[in-house]
Amino acid sequence: MAYQPVGLFHAAETGSSLEKEEFEQQLERLRVELLNLQYDLKSADFSVILLVVGDDRPGCVHLLHALHEWMDARYMETHVLFAEGSDEEQARPWCYRYWRRLPPDGRIGLFLGAWPAQVLQMAVDEGWDQLELDGALDHVERLERELALDGSLVLKFWLHLPKQVLEKRLARAEKDPQRHWRIEERDWEILENYDEGMPLLEQVVRRTNTTISPWQIVESTDHRYRNLSVAKQIAAALRNRLESGPPQPPEPVAGLEAPAPGESVLDQLDLAATVEPEKYSDELDRLQARLNDLSRQVCDAGISCVLAFEGSDAAGKGGAIRRVAKAIPIQNVRIVPIAAPTDEERARHYLWRFWRHLPAAGHTVIFDRSWYGRVLVERVEGFTPEHDWRRAYEEINDFESVLDDSGTPVIKFWLQIDADEQLRRFEARAETPYKKYKLTEEDFRNREKWDLYQHAVHDMVTHTSTAYSPWTLVAANDKRHARLEVLRTVCERLEARLDAESGRTQRARKGKKDKKDKKSGKGKGRKKGDRR
Amino acid sequence: MAYQPVGLFHAAETGSSLEKEEFEQQLERLRVELLNLQYDLKSADFSVILLVVGDDRPGCVHLLHALHEWMDARYMETHVLFAEGSDEEQARPWCYRYWRRLPPDGRIGLFLGAWPAQVLQMAVDEGWDQLELDGALDHVERLERELALDGSLVLKFWLHLPKQVLEKRLARAEKDPQRHWRIEERDWEILENYDEGMPLLEQVVRRTNTTISPWQIVESTDHRYRNLSVAKQIAAALRNRLESGPPQPPEPVAGLEAPAPGESVLDQLDLAATVEPEKYSDELDRLQARLNDLSRQVCDAGISCVLAFEGSDAAGKGGAIRRVAKAIPIQNVRIVPIAAPTDEERARHYLWRFWRHLPAAGHTVIFDRSWYGRVLVERVEGFTPEHDWRRAYEEINDFESVLDDSGTPVIKFWLQIDADEQLRRFEARAETPYKKYKLTEEDFRNREKWDLYQHAVHDMVTHTSTAYSPWTLVAANDKRHARLEVLRTVCERLEARLDAESGRTQRARKGKKDKKDKKSGKGKGRKKGDRR
Repeated sequence: MAYQPVGLFHAAETGSSLEKEEFEQQLERLRVELLNLQYDLKSADFSVILLVVGDDRPGCVHLLHALHEWMDARYMETHVLFAEGSDEEQARPWCYRYWRRLPPDGRIGLFLGAWPAQVLQMAVDEGWDQLELDGALDHVERLERELALDGSLVLKFWLHLPKQVLEKRLARAEKDPQRHWRIEERDWEILENYDEGMPLLEQVVRRTNTTISPWQIVESTDHRYRNLSVAKQIAAALRNRLESGPPQPPEPVAGLEAPAPGESVLDQLDLAATVEPEKYSDELDRLQARLNDLSRQVCDAGISCVLAFEGSDAAGKGGAIRRVAKAIPIQNVRIVPIAAPTDEERARHYLWRFWRHLPAAGHTVIFDRSWYGRVLVERVEGFTPEHDWRRAYEEINDFESVLDDSGTPVIKFWLQIDADEQLRRFEARAETPYKKYKLTEEDFRNREKWDLYQHAVHDMVTHTSTAYSPWTLVAANDKRHARLEVLRTVCERLEARLDAESGRTQRARKGKKDKKDKKSGKGKGRKKGDRR
Repeated sequence: MAYQPVGLFHAAETGSSLEKEEFEQQLERLRVELLNLQYDLKSADFSVILLVVGDDRPGCVHLLHALHEWMDARYMETHVLFAEGSDEEQARPWCYRYWRRLPPDGRIGLFLGAWPAQVLQMAVDEGWDQLELDGALDHVERLERELALDGSLVLKFWLHLPKQVLEKRLARAEKDPQRHWRIEERDWEILENYDEGMPLLEQVVRRTNTTISPWQIVESTDHRYRNLSVAKQIAAALRNRLESGPPQPPEPVAGLEAPAPGESVLDQLDLAATVEPEKYSDELDRLQARLNDLSRQVCDAGISCVLAFEGSDAAGKGGAIRRVAKAIPIQNVRIVPIAAPTDEERARHYLWRFWRHLPAAGHTVIFDRSWYGRVLVERVEGFTPEHDWRRAYEEINDFESVLDDSGTPVIKFWLQIDADEQLRRFEARAETPYKKYKLTEEDFRNREKWDLYQHAVHDMVTHTSTAYSPWTLVAANDKRHARLEVLRTVCERLEARLDAESGRTQRARKGKKDKKDKKSGKGKGRKKGDRR
């Protein structure tokens, strides 16, 4: 049965068009405004993320050329993502290719064929069921909300062609060799699958049509109307954002009270636990050999691994990290220390700096301090407003869930020492000849905030210990005990993952590949006469 | 005939070793020094580039683990490059993978298996003749010199195993399963090709053993001696560099006199050249269609393309760039505007920010302003000391030659207007409602330096117009004339390139692939018994 447009698409099919004269008159004013808005944006503290997607692919390209002409292309980063990602991208979670391309503050990032298009494509290619589709749309919705709440202006345009217009256009294009080069195989595919595809497409659009990041569906039949209409909406949204500031984040409804004495998750740790040197040495050898073996299996299975280490100063993160890293084949592991962000990092969502370091399939990245700085040091020191670090719990859970879903388990450790042990280690450092251990006033200031940090850790663990990525709290007063505990946990988590995935990952990945092969095979085999 | 070690390698075969006690005694002092040096490096204005290469591959890994333990791994970025590059890397000039990984100031970049190893590998895999090898070694030598002159401390260690030691070690490893995982196929290959390979290897080492970036050949037989010896040399070099500053760049032997009136290369331009609107419109259509067609051919041939646009303010770069970009399929072209560098860029060699934007095979990147800023604005405004911008002529020529050699022709334009025309355009801008065209004092200050800029342009063209990448000077008082001239030149250059390469590129790339296939096929087919 032929598809009947409903909802957003139906509303968009207005048949609007613009005469040339009217168009040019309106355009003249609009161009001045657009350029002036871009000029103001340059010194603003947010970026614009502009998605142009649609069933009218050549229309998307045409619109992009128009925007390039009307606006200052130097402050607009354009990313045409019709094709598949590179292998560096395919070896990472699917939204890596967007994260790595996020524009900095003051710039427009213009994406042609971005995540909504990719989700659609993956749903079709991989024959997703409703559960898989829901999962992906959930991530998309969260991604867009996170970017918007972070301050980015997220604008999404869907260029829509009524079926009969698309039909006519393709027929005409086929006869006219001057225009024909703009039409590609996949445009014919859109027509072929129009009736079947629209319900899926509507679902994608509806599910991601949120208050904070709504879709603008624009009928693409008349190119002057379409281009001008999109450009006007960009101008209006940008003007509004520049004038009235970012959307107000919701106020948190309840406070995060400090846990009563004895009720912190950290109280469950037995800090007196120790391991004898001899036992340690044997056990270390054993665990490192086991981890070495496991990390090879994990690599073969195409599973990547993210380890995150947190802990107060002198808790022994570095020593634990080295013991882990040493057991993994050196070409597969990288340690990423997290210190102050660079200006490129500061100009983007705070998770960007972690996305850029994510491991490729089969590799391991160990973060020495991590995204949890957002809810630890940034919270306690007041670097980040409360509503921002509060939101981070959700954002982090989603970040780790995206990673976990795409074959990158996140294994995270809090190394706990008590205040006395820290002081002992500080004093020991004061006696060493290492300059880097020169104690500063800051170290002692941090000690004054000990309780605030412990409270923040309790909240962090409470809010971000998930089934897919639980925290491991490690009693670290005894370094040997802590190191073995860390190694053991990594081994166990990898083993569990391998068990759970044995077959599953490979099946899924293989299935994906088979479907793709079939699909492209079919595409290639099809002859021109087959098109209708 | 069995290979007899000569020169550097002969000298290195000392059979030195260290007793455990002596080793630990020395190590204790050394670790303190290394950590303290790293601490000082953190706030220094240079980076350390540490290459560890050698015929003893497991030894390289062992050394790296030791350095990780002895030094602060958080300020050391480690890159293990034994494997082939990703497709993003393979689609770009071969040294892209090093450039993208250059450490920022204050950090150590530790490369395992870096460019010397890759050149060796390519020479063998692709059966290079002496000419090809010389070309590559030339680039390596220049690369290292440029990095060193830019201030980086480039340290190169070659871990050398005498043949009989390697033989023994492999035999022992094969029997000992605990150690066996460290030994890989390619270690056997090294032994097999030892006699054949050493002369080539010696040539690579000798050719790249320069005063500014000498090799340290270390015998790798005794692991304590080797690790300690390398670490000591790192400490000594770093201490020396921190104390006595960067190597003094050679003073330029001759000045760059301003050309006599009428003798500037710019005087050859006929700025009165114009094109009638009607003729322009027809010609523009024709040239854009031609460019569209050519850019598809270029893409199919795997040739990438870098366009660089320079010109004084208001010379019309943006308009010309848009006309070019529009004619290229949108997914294959990107415009990169060059403004002030970010701090990540400032912390590295000035060419790094251009390397990171290089196009993949088949793609085009258009730079709106470029690396020539080094010898234009940075020279005239005094941002860069004379010996640095003077050196840039050579560096740029080498940069463009590396690009050209790897299938990325660089097509560059200087758009010339005269001072009167610039004033006219400034005045016209003053009347428009565009904020970005608000004239600032700086614009007029720049006008005062008109002659200095013209002199700098003359020198730039004189020194960097090469056979492989000539400047095209464009008379741009008439915008229409300039745009057609630009389009025509791009077409002609691409056509010439396609003609010259027709077959050649494909032959070379295919040859490369065939050889690889053959090689890996051979590797796979070979049985364990074949090893000897």
